[in-house]
Amino acid sequence: MISPNVETFIGCDSSYRAADIVLYGAPFDSTTSYRPGARFGPSAIRHESFGLETYSPYQNADLTDFDIFDSGDLELCFGSSEAALADIEARASEILHDGKLPLLLGGEHLVTLGAVRAVAEKYPGLHIIHFDAHADLRDDYLGAKLSHACVLRRCHEIVGDGRIHQFCIRSGERAEFEFAAQHTEMHKFGFTGLAELTEQLCATKEPVYLTIDLDCLDPSCFPGTGTPEAGGVSFLQLLDAIRTVSKANIVGADLNELAPMLDISGVSTATACKVLRELLIALDKGWPGFQV
Amino acid sequence: MISPNVETFIGCDSSYRAADIVLYGAPFDSTTSYRPGARFGPSAIRHESFGLETYSPYQNADLTDFDIFDSGDLELCFGSSEAALADIEARASEILHDGKLPLLLGGEHLVTLGAVRAVAEKYPGLHIIHFDAHADLRDDYLGAKLSHACVLRRCHEIVGDGRIHQFCIRSGERAEFEFAAQHTEMHKFGFTGLAELTEQLCATKEPVYLTIDLDCLDPSCFPGTGTPEAGGVSFLQLLDAIRTVSKANIVGADLNELAPMLDISGVSTATACKVLRELLIALDKGWPGFQV
Amino acid sequence: MISPNVETFIGCDSSYRAADIVLYGAPFDSTTSYRPGARFGPSAIRHESFGLETYSPYQNADLTDFDIFDSGDLELCFGSSEAALADIEARASEILHDGKLPLLLGGEHLVTLGAVRAVAEKYPGLHIIHFDAHADLRDDYLGAKLSHACVLRRCHEIVGDGRIHQFCIRSGERAEFEFAAQHTEMHKFGFTGLAELTEQLCATKEPVYLTIDLDCLDPSCFPGTGTPEAGGVSFLQLLDAIRTVSKANIVGADLNELAPMLDISGVSTATACKVLRELLIALDKGWPGFQV
Amino acid sequence: MISPNVETFIGCDSSYRAADIVLYGAPFDSTTSYRPGARFGPSAIRHESFGLETYSPYQNADLTDFDIFDSGDLELCFGSSEAALADIEARASEILHDGKLPLLLGGEHLVTLGAVRAVAEKYPGLHIIHFDAHADLRDDYLGAKLSHACVLRRCHEIVGDGRIHQFCIRSGERAEFEFAAQHTEMHKFGFTGLAELTEQLCATKEPVYLTIDLDCLDPSCFPGTGTPEAGGVSFLQLLDAIRTVSKANIVGADLNELAPMLDISGVSTATACKVLRELLIALDKGWPGFQV
Amino acid sequence: MISPNVETFIGCDSSYRAADIVLYGAPFDSTTSYRPGARFGPSAIRHESFGLETYSPYQNADLTDFDIFDSGDLELCFGSSEAALADIEARASEILHDGKLPLLLGGEHLVTLGAVRAVAEKYPGLHIIHFDAHADLRDDYLGAKLSHACVLRRCHEIVGDGRIHQFCIRSGERAEFEFAAQHTEMHKFGFTGLAELTEQLCATKEPVYLTIDLDCLDPSCFPGTGTPEAGGVSFLQLLDAIRTVSKANIVGADLNELAPMLDISGVSTATACKVLRELLIALDKGWPGFQV
Amino acid sequence: MISPNVETFIGCDSSYRAADIVLYGAPFDSTTSYRPGARFGPSAIRHESFGLETYSPYQNADLTDFDIFDSGDLELCFGSSEAALADIEARASEILHDGKLPLLLGGEHLVTLGAVRAVAEKYPGLHIIHFDAHADLRDDYLGAKLSHACVLRRCHEIVGDGRIHQFCIRSGERAEFEFAAQHTEMHKFGFTGLAELTEQLCATKEPVYLTIDLDCLDPSCFPGTGTPEAGGVSFLQLLDAIRTVSKANIVGADLNELAPMLDISGVSTATACKVLRELLIALDKGWPGFQV
Repeated sequence: MISPNVETFIGCDSSYRAADIVLYGAPFDSTTSYRPGARFGPSAIRHESFGLETYSPYQNADLTDFDIFDSGDLELCFGSSEAALADIEARASEILHDGKLPLLLGGEHLVTLGAVRAVAEKYPGLHIIHFDAHADLRDDYLGAKLSHACVLRRCHEIVGDGRIHQFCIRSGERAEFEFAAQHTEMHKFGFTGLAELTEQLCATKEPVYLTIDLDCLDPSCFPGTGTPEAGGVSFLQLLDAIRTVSKANIVGADLNELAPMLDISGVSTATACKVLRELLIALDKGWPGFQV
Repeated sequence: MISPNVETFIGCDSSYRAADIVLYGAPFDSTTSYRPGARFGPSAIRHESFGLETYSPYQNADLTDFDIFDSGDLELCFGSSEAALADIEARASEILHDGKLPLLLGGEHLVTLGAVRAVAEKYPGLHIIHFDAHADLRDDYLGAKLSHACVLRRCHEIVGDGRIHQFCIRSGERAEFEFAAQHTEMHKFGFTGLAELTEQLCATKEPVYLTIDLDCLDPSCFPGTGTPEAGGVSFLQLLDAIRTVSKANIVGADLNELAPMLDISGVSTATACKVLRELLIALDKGWPGFQV
Repeated sequence: MISPNVETFIGCDSSYRAADIVLYGAPFDSTTSYRPGARFGPSAIRHESFGLETYSPYQNADLTDFDIFDSGDLELCFGSSEAALADIEARASEILHDGKLPLLLGGEHLVTLGAVRAVAEKYPGLHIIHFDAHADLRDDYLGAKLSHACVLRRCHEIVGDGRIHQFCIRSGERAEFEFAAQHTEMHKFGFTGLAELTEQLCATKEPVYLTIDLDCLDPSCFPGTGTPEAGGVSFLQLLDAIRTVSKANIVGADLNELAPMLDISGVSTATACKVLRELLIALDKGWPGFQV
Repeated sequence: MISPNVETFIGCDSSYRAADIVLYGAPFDSTTSYRPGARFGPSAIRHESFGLETYSPYQNADLTDFDIFDSGDLELCFGSSEAALADIEARASEILHDGKLPLLLGGEHLVTLGAVRAVAEKYPGLHIIHFDAHADLRDDYLGAKLSHACVLRRCHEIVGDGRIHQFCIRSGERAEFEFAAQHTEMHKFGFTGLAELTEQLCATKEPVYLTIDLDCLDPSCFPGTGTPEAGGVSFLQLLDAIRTVSKANIVGADLNELAPMLDISGVSTATACKVLRELLIALDKGWPGFQV
Repeated sequence: MISPNVETFIGCDSSYRAADIVLYGAPFDSTTSYRPGARFGPSAIRHESFGLETYSPYQNADLTDFDIFDSGDLELCFGSSEAALADIEARASEILHDGKLPLLLGGEHLVTLGAVRAVAEKYPGLHIIHFDAHADLRDDYLGAKLSHACVLRRCHEIVGDGRIHQFCIRSGERAEFEFAAQHTEMHKFGFTGLAELTEQLCATKEPVYLTIDLDCLDPSCFPGTGTPEAGGVSFLQLLDAIRTVSKANIVGADLNELAPMLDISGVSTATACKVLRELLIALDKGWPGFQV
Repeated sequence: MISPNVETFIGCDSSYRAADIVLYGAPFDSTTSYRPGARFGPSAIRHESFGLETYSPYQNADLTDFDIFDSGDLELCFGSSEAALADIEARASEILHDGKLPLLLGGEHLVTLGAVRAVAEKYPGLHIIHFDAHADLRDDYLGAKLSHACVLRRCHEIVGDGRIHQFCIRSGERAEFEFAAQHTEMHKFGFTGLAELTEQLCATKEPVYLTIDLDCLDPSCFPGTGTPEAGGVSFLQLLDAIRTVSKANIVGADLNELAPMLDISGVSTATACKVLRELLIALDKGWPGFQV
């Protein structure tokens, strides 16, 4: 009997029931103000992953050693941010309810808000660790409160002062940097301070949401994103940061802002695939604690 | 004294006061469901027009013979269709109020709705002539009423049955074609019937809004659009249609759905520039009646 | 319960059991001598089909009216043509054995040989109708007997003289045209003669295999192929030809030589999707006779 | 003994001594005012010709039946038009002196002037047949007399009134069209009048220089050129025109304005290769008369 | 009243009268010997700057804190280097005469010569600090004295021995390196020695012209340039160098050799925008001393 | 007398007889499993080298100081790996027989096997130094023993345990890393250990074959390759490694896996050209010892 064509991120063919981690895609970029295309990120990552090895020589582990389920992309409404966020939140809540870790693939960075709403509801006292070139702390953007440029500001309204930890930030309005000085913990340009932060969070076992805007990477290794910002971190620095932070009690995560059509060499998509592989392995390695 | 850098569509450097026709750009594509990028259309047309001659051998006329003003792009809110439409409507109303013809450069096709609202308010009994590959007659698209795929349906709610005349249509859901059979005048695949229609409209001098989705063109000559549909009309057929229809009492118009980044050869942008030149000349030739 | 990510050509989500037509992809292009990339054709067609309507205004029918199953891509061995052909033949045989029509998506044109071997075994006296820019009648190509440039020559060894009907041919060595004059029915440049041929084949109800190399299309509307040849047919001419030929007793078919990366505008892939939609509808309309 | 890497246009490997026709490339585009890149035209044509068949089904002839020599590209000075033209003229004169037909591959259209100077010196009473989208009749362009936009104007200064025959023209300043009305024979948009002209020229056996700006082709089939102009002729129409005009007494020719990097699909280069094949065959078929 | 479309580099909307720094573009690349396209650099920088923040977290300053005027692009003659240089020199002289700092956007590197002529006339004893991958010290290039490859050699004829300070050089003919050993101060590969040099120049307050060929950057972060040379400096190293050198008495500057079409990801243009923002802020911070 | 168009890598125009090093191209990529295109590598390197200087400031030497011959590309059979390898082996053997160093330009990495067969036959006890992102140690790939993914495994069958020295490896199946632990000397991620190895090999003067898969470079500086792997070495690290290893007794070498079409910015090809220049100079500097 010939079977239909199932397409998942490579090595993520566990059943939903057995899975520790559940991937879900949010192909949405309606509020992107500069160059759109992040909507195509999750399907590109899934599709191009067949060129990736499941084995990581960095962590000496293999994706096939773990139980991961890829639930494909949500079908989201273009033109209504609120409707899209509601759908994302519902999916994240369902995964959390089933005792699994939701890993969201964006889309533009606004999608994080849907996931954070669900995670913060389950985990009061949530911390957010944020890797990004942009502060994303505007109060509104051309009048819109729900915009990629405001997403961490909206998250701040949920989790409060001192619970958002920003790394690699190198772009924003002056007012955003001033807001950060008051309300978030911002580490400009790189990952300085991440090890110390993780140590503290490990000590307290507080729940952490990890949001990775791939434009934290330098455009030399990741040109395929809507607003590339020179002066970013390297792939190996990001890998290091992921392995560091994965020791904390991560209860939700996302990876976003790959706009695959902007880099026709395919390198950005291939790099996103590898970041996702490393992230999945790092998260799943720490997962047994979660099951307790 | 050195002057600042003014950038207009070539040959459109009249003062606003003197102008018969006013160009205004709507760089918006938030509801585009497939491939975005039409937001970059108006500025690309303006920028690349410096490679265009102002003289048309087709109409033996020169853009510099006419008084046209290019007001640049509106700054629209991404992520809120209603806010964007309101801004477009306001600009169109202002131009109409000043006794000039508003010519809108999209952007995705939804922008037409803002202009039609303004024009229909000034001109009761408005007809809409619609060149497009797509019927754009859905009632909603993934829940959104304000979507490029619904724009003519929304326009129908304004102008009513029998006043929308569609040409070149070759794509849509079955339900859209059924709706058209009841409520609009749809001419599939090409311009058959346009000459007769124009003759009737000339006889009655009824006001007409002309909306041109550039994807009515065959993708061979216009690949740079979000949803290219094989089997379209040629550039010369479109030129012919524009000259034909310009004899009617056109009181507003738009040109939309160029997504310049999707055609890196630049041909689509160059072709859009030439269509705009021919449209401006054709409209302005018939303009004297307007000045009465 | 969240379900996994099934990806099919749009509207082809019948069960295998219920299906009349079964799609299967052969992502192979190892013998391509000029520009490779046809290996990515079937997955691109499947993936990009989500931008396509299921309804055809040309045939006033909808893909969802029919029972079609998409079995995804075979996993073929690069570097061994014989192994790849054996896998294709096995899949075609299985589909034929189950009383369904196998519709192969290439890949380079050599993949046709695998399908023809299976179909000719079930249907003695098979005719082949061949739409292509290239004669593909070389005896060998740089020493290889199994090459895209030789595929109709190999098919001729199976079906014999007078049973291969070639259309749109406009490229080849002089020796291929001489071979055609002796052994095949070649119609250069276009579809002249196709209606007459179909009439004859309908009269006799002889079984027909239809192989469509998409490079029969003019490069203006289909640049995304390994060896584009100026002077081809238009999309509408190809549609016409498909509707004509579908009246014959088609027992197997293929569509090949889309190399999506060579046309980054996406037009070629979108056009291939539409050709496939029209082909599926045309074939399935005539299918009831098959079920007898 | 291993031999060095000789690269010629396919099938053009005659010795210089034996050759009837000599190809020479002029990789120059310094005066291009819009999008440069024609400098890469001749080497791209030569390089990509290995994907072309030497046999023409249109003329039932094979490049290998003729004696053609490809002398490669001249090394021209960027930034000095006069120096470049002098080098082109010298090469053309040498080829003419040796009793062979010089066929120049541009480069931007200005290169024609170098060849015409040489040919007109040998052949008083020279006619020029000019296929182009652009009139190229400006007296100067931003102060430069030696510009691609002025090349036919400069040629007119050499050959005089009534001896330049222009076809396919669809772009230029009003003043150029007015100049043409007085001094050249301009046929707008297509090839109307070419057959009659050729007949007259055949009757008188007057010498003819043929200059083909490939942008006479519609951008749908030839996007890879600096200033694409919608509304051009098709590949088959150009082929027809070449076969028609080749019956006249052609004593020099050129093919120019392919800018290969502007069409990364490769179709424009492939099409230019095929136009060159057909031109070479058409010219060489008529060549015996020349040898008398 | 609707106003016309003014387009400037972001945050540079001072009046000319009030401005300290005046931007002027030189869209010229006629002598580029390899890959042209730098002509499109200045308009791309201006156009894409709308995706840039005006605030610099590196210098904790905002473009809008300063008075900068963008005068747009000069209209230069293609094909005549001398005419283009004269126009550039005239514009630079006018800006200098008005007591402002001229900041030139190229274009190919030859444009620097026009500016240096004007600056050296006003400031005898001028030093030139030169960031570039290429020595640009040829005496002529294929016979042309006015060529991008000769521009620093021509500048040397103006300022004399020991006054040209070259950094990041990693490509050139052997003879250029030999010339440098005798006549310029060349620092190969990077910025070693820049801090010491700046200290000396600050001590003497000698006037300095700063010319930045963006190809000093590594092609990984700046692929969009005519002749990319592996082994360059990083963006952060360049930023550092700019801040260092800006302490000297800079009286004129330029930024050149962005060829935006060669990097369709847009990263090179975005990076050039950010380099320009940082350069403007660094220069303007030191400006008050100039006004004395 | 006008001469034909000879095209070589820049500065490699020695006669075969006089040459120390002979370049030969293997435009083959039939077994590439992911993205093909390496077949175009050698001709792109040769063609684009005209934009490269022959002088190396890194080694203070000039290609024109040495005797190098470029024999162009072999004409290989697509679709038969064994036939292609036999042709490569024959060419390598001929060059070795004539006392010259064969330097192979791939093509996919499988081509190395042909060269290694020839070199190992002449030089028993051969060592292989292997720079690559991938281990290439699979026993078979989808059933094929002759695959790019298996090439070092096949080489191991020739040279045996402990004679393959792998550097920069960062991708592979777990089983390949396990194989390496037993049978090769694998240095993950970078060049650690290369200096020590070279010292040992210099001491023993054992013959060494050097195979460089350009994907050892980080994709930021070399995106134009079939399977880019983030986390690679920099251009300057590779240069260093080449200069280090060239002190050993290198008796054959190759450079492969440039797929030029995948990086339309041209940076990858330009970088490959520079790597080849540096490799040629480094190898030829050590060559006199070879001639003894």
